[in-house]
Amino acid sequence: MAVRTIEWRGGELLLIDQRRLPRKEVYRVCRNYRQVAQAIRTMVVRGAPAIGVTAAMGVVLGARRVRSRKAMEPAMERVFRTLAETRPTAVNLHWALARMRQTYEEHRDGDLELLKQRLEEAALAMYEEDITANRRLGSLGAGLLKGSRRILTHCNAGALATAGYGTALGVIRAMKESGAAIEEVFVDETRPFLQGARLTAWELCKEDIPTTLITDNMMGYVMQQNRVDAVVVGADRVAANGDVANKIGTYTVAVLAREHGVPFYVACPTSTVDLTCPSGAHIPIEQRSEDEVTHIAGSRIAPHGVKTLNPAFDVTDHSLVSAIITEKAVVTAPYEKNLREVCEG
Amino acid sequence: MAVRTIEWRGGELLLIDQRRLPRKEVYRVCRNYRQVAQAIRTMVVRGAPAIGVTAAMGVVLGARRVRSRKAMEPAMERVFRTLAETRPTAVNLHWALARMRQTYEEHRDGDLELLKQRLEEAALAMYEEDITANRRLGSLGAGLLKGSRRILTHCNAGALATAGYGTALGVIRAMKESGAAIEEVFVDETRPFLQGARLTAWELCKEDIPTTLITDNMMGYVMQQNRVDAVVVGADRVAANGDVANKIGTYTVAVLAREHGVPFYVACPTSTVDLTCPSGAHIPIEQRSEDEVTHIAGSRIAPHGVKTLNPAFDVTDHSLVSAIITEKAVVTAPYEKNLREVCEG
Repeated sequence: MAVRTIEWRGGELLLIDQRRLPRKEVYRVCRNYRQVAQAIRTMVVRGAPAIGVTAAMGVVLGARRVRSRKAMEPAMERVFRTLAETRPTAVNLHWALARMRQTYEEHRDGDLELLKQRLEEAALAMYEEDITANRRLGSLGAGLLKGSRRILTHCNAGALATAGYGTALGVIRAMKESGAAIEEVFVDETRPFLQGARLTAWELCKEDIPTTLITDNMMGYVMQQNRVDAVVVGADRVAANGDVANKIGTYTVAVLAREHGVPFYVACPTSTVDLTCPSGAHIPIEQRSEDEVTHIAGSRIAPHGVKTLNPAFDVTDHSLVSAIITEKAVVTAPYEKNLREVCEG
Repeated sequence: MAVRTIEWRGGELLLIDQRRLPRKEVYRVCRNYRQVAQAIRTMVVRGAPAIGVTAAMGVVLGARRVRSRKAMEPAMERVFRTLAETRPTAVNLHWALARMRQTYEEHRDGDLELLKQRLEEAALAMYEEDITANRRLGSLGAGLLKGSRRILTHCNAGALATAGYGTALGVIRAMKESGAAIEEVFVDETRPFLQGARLTAWELCKEDIPTTLITDNMMGYVMQQNRVDAVVVGADRVAANGDVANKIGTYTVAVLAREHGVPFYVACPTSTVDLTCPSGAHIPIEQRSEDEVTHIAGSRIAPHGVKTLNPAFDVTDHSLVSAIITEKAVVTAPYEKNLREVCEG
């Protein structure tokens, strides 16, 4: 794998600093859970599956500092709470912490060192499972998108958003591996954080996949010119009814795709599906700092005093979604029924 | 007027350098037609009506350097050609040069100094007419938008895009002058050149109009949340059938507006309507440099070697346009018939 997003070195966690890409490949070392929480909050690491795995490793680092059984309970509660509060929208974070808590509950009454070992094993298992899930959903997606030669994607749902391989970009990678002739991948730059320009374009160029970077407001233009066969994006949370929370702008892409008869696919592992969340209206949308909108690369681009909005995500109604590609199956409408069957099956 | 876009000082033309806004108010002095052409090409000045008036003043500066009748004809042909070739999409440029040529043809056989004087008068008349037209269309637009309290605009169709007052922002200014309670104006930042963030937000903040800056990919989100009562944008060229060429992203706004039942208005003087152009398919779309997409404020944001698209404009089908607000009338469908009647009437 050319891209190392998350690397566990037993006792420390290495994260590529995604804020510095594509200009610099800098790795941050986290040695305690607070550094992990800070890395998630400040978007050193981002992308729903990557956040989940990173948080799990944060729990491992948190547990390693516990020196006595007496200190354990309050310390671990602090660890779980701090990590849970880093970002609100991506459900993988909560899913990963819930799994870690389950391991914790199972082993808390036993030997402390054994508990630490079990937590580390659980986190590493999640890491491996995420890559395996991505490869599977990539392969299923490649079958679904067979014949699509010109694809548009938004934000970064790549190796950098996961433990490796990627979801939306996993589908594109799998298409390439299966010998499909990919003519062009349009990448929305994805303001304000520019995940498309900085991360997706970088990943795809590294793999020699023909990549065309566009500004977000060119989406309509390229579809109007019949230059897009399919859209594939990732997700931060999928509600039980199939509504999709994903990076701001995804809803605009979905409306345009329907207007132009272009299929709109969402690629995500089942850990992104939140069956306890009835619809998109129940998904909390993180509002981020005004600075991300008023500044780019440290330069102010807007007048002082102007108000901004900065929702990090939007919700795409399930009626706009052609299919949800998971590692277990390609799910189509009716989502309410089919998502539950696939996720619980 | 708080904003001085274009200022004729008899013998020299002052242009506010729009590339430096909102950080610096720097004025460029043009003393010959080549400097004027360069200013248009490099977007020191931009916006269809502003380009038209600026080009007219370029003709005046070109004529002033002519020293003899013998040198006049080739010199003036060079002036007209150079200015005409600066930018392809905005029709006001060609409209203004055609008017200047008419004055030139009428007076070329008379006294050379009188010719120069007549050209100067013609250019100044165009300057004044543009402001008058904007005030009239602003007033008509304010009537049409009565009751709309939350407006979304794209790019900059303001005082900076015209001799003064503005087209889309002229409508908003006229609403304010007529005492309308404007609750919020959403401004798309308008990548790659950021005319929304840098220019429109700056103009509106100067006038204390409540302004909320959003990234282009938030358009769908704000409409989905029922936060927009009407969209109003400018135009670079309107074809005889009502198709509208305007800043890249306008088509995306129009599709979203229809999806959400939000009226989509275009505000422009009749000099922007090109009755010789049957439809949007015949409007040349300027492709600009890749650097505008790969860089922001001088900083590279994309990996080396990535391909980009950079169409400066897109075309919105007339079926998506609720009305075209001109200085003569508010024009609605059928545009083919009604635009001709209004423009020729």
